[in-house]
Amino acid sequence: MDAHAVIHRCLTLARYTEEPGHITRRFLSPPMREVHHEVRRWMEEAGMRVSVDAAGNIRGVYGSGPRLMIGSHLDTVPQAGAFDGVLGVMIGIALVERKPPYSIEVVGFSEEEGVRFRVPFIGSRALAGDPVMDDAVLEAIRAFGLDPQEIPKAVMAREVRGYLEFHIEQGPVLDQRNLALGVVEEIVGQSRADVLFQGKAGHAGTTPMTARSDALAAAAEWIGVVEKTALEEGVVATVGSLDVQPGAVNVIPGLARASLDLRHKNAGKMAKTLETLQTSAEAIATRRRVSGWWELRSTQPPVEMNRVMTSVLATAVKASGHRPFRLSSGAGHDAMILARKVPAAMLFLRSPGGISHHPDEKVAQEDVEAALGVGKRFLETWRPV
Amino acid sequence: MDAHAVIHRCLTLARYTEEPGHITRRFLSPPMREVHHEVRRWMEEAGMRVSVDAAGNIRGVYGSGPRLMIGSHLDTVPQAGAFDGVLGVMIGIALVERKPPYSIEVVGFSEEEGVRFRVPFIGSRALAGDPVMDDAVLEAIRAFGLDPQEIPKAVMAREVRGYLEFHIEQGPVLDQRNLALGVVEEIVGQSRADVLFQGKAGHAGTTPMTARSDALAAAAEWIGVVEKTALEEGVVATVGSLDVQPGAVNVIPGLARASLDLRHKNAGKMAKTLETLQTSAEAIATRRRVSGWWELRSTQPPVEMNRVMTSVLATAVKASGHRPFRLSSGAGHDAMILARKVPAAMLFLRSPGGISHHPDEKVAQEDVEAALGVGKRFLETWRPV
Repeated sequence: MDAHAVIHRCLTLARYTEEPGHITRRFLSPPMREVHHEVRRWMEEAGMRVSVDAAGNIRGVYGSGPRLMIGSHLDTVPQAGAFDGVLGVMIGIALVERKPPYSIEVVGFSEEEGVRFRVPFIGSRALAGDPVMDDAVLEAIRAFGLDPQEIPKAVMAREVRGYLEFHIEQGPVLDQRNLALGVVEEIVGQSRADVLFQGKAGHAGTTPMTARSDALAAAAEWIGVVEKTALEEGVVATVGSLDVQPGAVNVIPGLARASLDLRHKNAGKMAKTLETLQTSAEAIATRRRVSGWWELRSTQPPVEMNRVMTSVLATAVKASGHRPFRLSSGAGHDAMILARKVPAAMLFLRSPGGISHHPDEKVAQEDVEAALGVGKRFLETWRPV
Repeated sequence: MDAHAVIHRCLTLARYTEEPGHITRRFLSPPMREVHHEVRRWMEEAGMRVSVDAAGNIRGVYGSGPRLMIGSHLDTVPQAGAFDGVLGVMIGIALVERKPPYSIEVVGFSEEEGVRFRVPFIGSRALAGDPVMDDAVLEAIRAFGLDPQEIPKAVMAREVRGYLEFHIEQGPVLDQRNLALGVVEEIVGQSRADVLFQGKAGHAGTTPMTARSDALAAAAEWIGVVEKTALEEGVVATVGSLDVQPGAVNVIPGLARASLDLRHKNAGKMAKTLETLQTSAEAIATRRRVSGWWELRSTQPPVEMNRVMTSVLATAVKASGHRPFRLSSGAGHDAMILARKVPAAMLFLRSPGGISHHPDEKVAQEDVEAALGVGKRFLETWRPV
C-alpha cells in the first residue's frame, strides 16, 4: 500500500460519522463499528490476527515473539478532519504489508480525544494497565457489546518492547520550516489554572474612573502579562476562556474568571512560570483593589520519548533524505500514556497551514510517502529486545 | 411631611413588587397599580387634582396658572433599592404640602429604567411629545387598562415653565466629599460601541506563541488602552461585556467582542476620545494580525441643565448652610428628556457608599431634610414666568 492508498483509506473511514456532512466519531459511537469492520479487513489482508479488546481498541498482531506496537486513535473531535489519529493506524497497517523483520502489533485506539465523557485516553490507558473505570464509560462499553469485566485483559502483552506512533503535527512548525517530518523529543507538560478577579460591580456612568474596582480591567492587564511572560520564558500559555459578570454594557464588571493553559517540556520551568503568573495576578489584584483567586486545576508532567528509539528515528529520517528536525509535541498523544510501560517514540507529519481539528485538515501524499520510508528504515534498524 | 415621613413613604412603596423579597417594579407591572393607589391618596391629601395619563404617568396638579413641574420615576430596576426615582416624587409631594406660592405639578413617571422593553424614558417621552410607539409598549398600556390613543394628550401643558428633579446621586462623588447635596450642571452624553476582534482559533498546545492571532489577547490590550485613555482624557469609559469564542480552555480565542460605554459632558471631547479608541483598536488589530471591527451603536449628546434654575438651586443650597457643589450626572434622568421642552434642573442627594440599583441603596434622613429645605427656598426665589 503506497501513500496514495493510505490517504484513500483515511478518507474512506471519514465516511463513518455520527453527523452527516461532518466527521464526528466519538468513543464507541455507532460509526466506530463500521470503522472496525473496515480496519479488521485491512489488517487481516496484511496477515494480522485481529481482535477488539474490552476497551474498544482494535488490535492486529503480525508474527510472534518480541514485538513493536504501532498505533494511534480512531476517534475524532466533533467536525474533525480525516487524518488526526486515523493516519497513524493506516501507516502501521501499510508497514506490516511491507513484511517487517519481526512481530508488529498495530492498534487503533478507541478513544484519545476525550470528547464523549470528557476523559481522554480511554483506549491507551487500558493497554497501560490504568483503565478508566468511570460508570458512564463502562456502560458505553457494555452498550457496544463488549464486556467491561474483560478490560484488565486489554493490558499490553509482555512481548511488546516499544511503541511507535505516526501522527500529523496539528501545528504550524514543520509547515513554516518547509519540512515533511519531525521527530518528537518529548510531549510537553500541561498545567491548567483558573484565575478569578472579584471587584465591585457598579454604574458605568456614575462611578468615577478612580473609584472603580473593575474585575475585567484587572483580568485584561493579567492577560497581557501572561502573553509577555510566555514570550520571555519560551513557554506556551493561553487564556482561552474569560467569563465576565454581570456582563452588561453599562455596568462595571464585578467578576472576571479566566482560564490558563500552560505548556512546556521542562517541569521546573513550568512550575516557575506558574508561580510568576500567580504572583502577578495577586499583585495586579492588590494594586487595583480587587480580590484575586488562583486555583491550579491540573498538572500533567512532560513525557520524554525514548532516546534510543528517537535517535534511530532521526537517523532514518536523515537516511530518507530529510532533515532530522526534532521538536516537542504541544498536544497530548497516546504515546504519552504508552511511554509509562514501554520505550516510546513519535514521528510527526507536516500539517499544511497547521490546521487540525477542522474539516480543512490535510496531509500531503509525499509526506506520507516519506513517513512510510522512514518507518521501513526504522524497522530495519531498531530491534524489539 | 418631614424627611422621616418622606423616607417612610419610599419604604411603603417598596413593598409593591413583582418579586417577593426584592424590589422589582417594571413599567406598568401589577404592583404599579398599588403604587398609583397610594400616591394618588397622598397627592389628594396635599390638595392636588390627580390623574394617570395614557403613558401610565401619575400626575397631580396643585393650584393653577404658570407652573413648575417636579418629578421623577416610580419604576425600578430588578432587585432595586427603595429610593432611586421614588424619592424625587415623594419630595415633590412634600413640597406641595408646604403650600408653595404658585402652581406645581408633581409627576410620578411610569418608566425611566428601560428594563421591561429595553426602551428607557417611556414616561417622560410622552410628556415631551416624543412618545414611544413600540407595539409591545402599546400592548402593555392597553393591558394596564389605559388607552394608547390618548397618549398625545399626555404631552405637558403650556402652563409648565420649568422642571425640577430631586434624585439620589447613584455614585460616590458626594459621599466621598462628605456633601449632602449636589447641583447638577449637565447630564453627560453617552456613546456605545461594539468592538470586535477576529483572530484565528487554534490549538493551545501546538500553536507557537509567535504564530498566533489571539483575539482575546488583542481585546485585553485594547481594554488597557480604554482605561488609560479615560484617565488621561478625564472621560468615563467602561468595557462592561466581553464575549470570547470558542471559549475553551485549550483553544486560542478566535473571536472577542467587547462593549464600550463612553460618557462625558463635552460632545467634542467624546467624539475625539471615540476616535482615539477606534484608531487604537485598529492599530492593535493590525499589529497582532487579527481583524478589528468597530460599530458605533448609539450616541446621546450631553444635556445642559438650565443656567438660571441651576443658579437659583445653588443659591438655595448655600442659603441652607450647605456647600453649593456642582457636578455632572453620569447617568441619564427624566430631566434630560424634559429639558428638550422646558428649562430643567436637578438636585442630587448623597448616595451613601455610592450604592444604587441594589437593595443596600440608602439615603440619610438629614440629607432629605436638607433637600426639602432647598426645595422650599427654590420655590420662594424662582418663578414660573
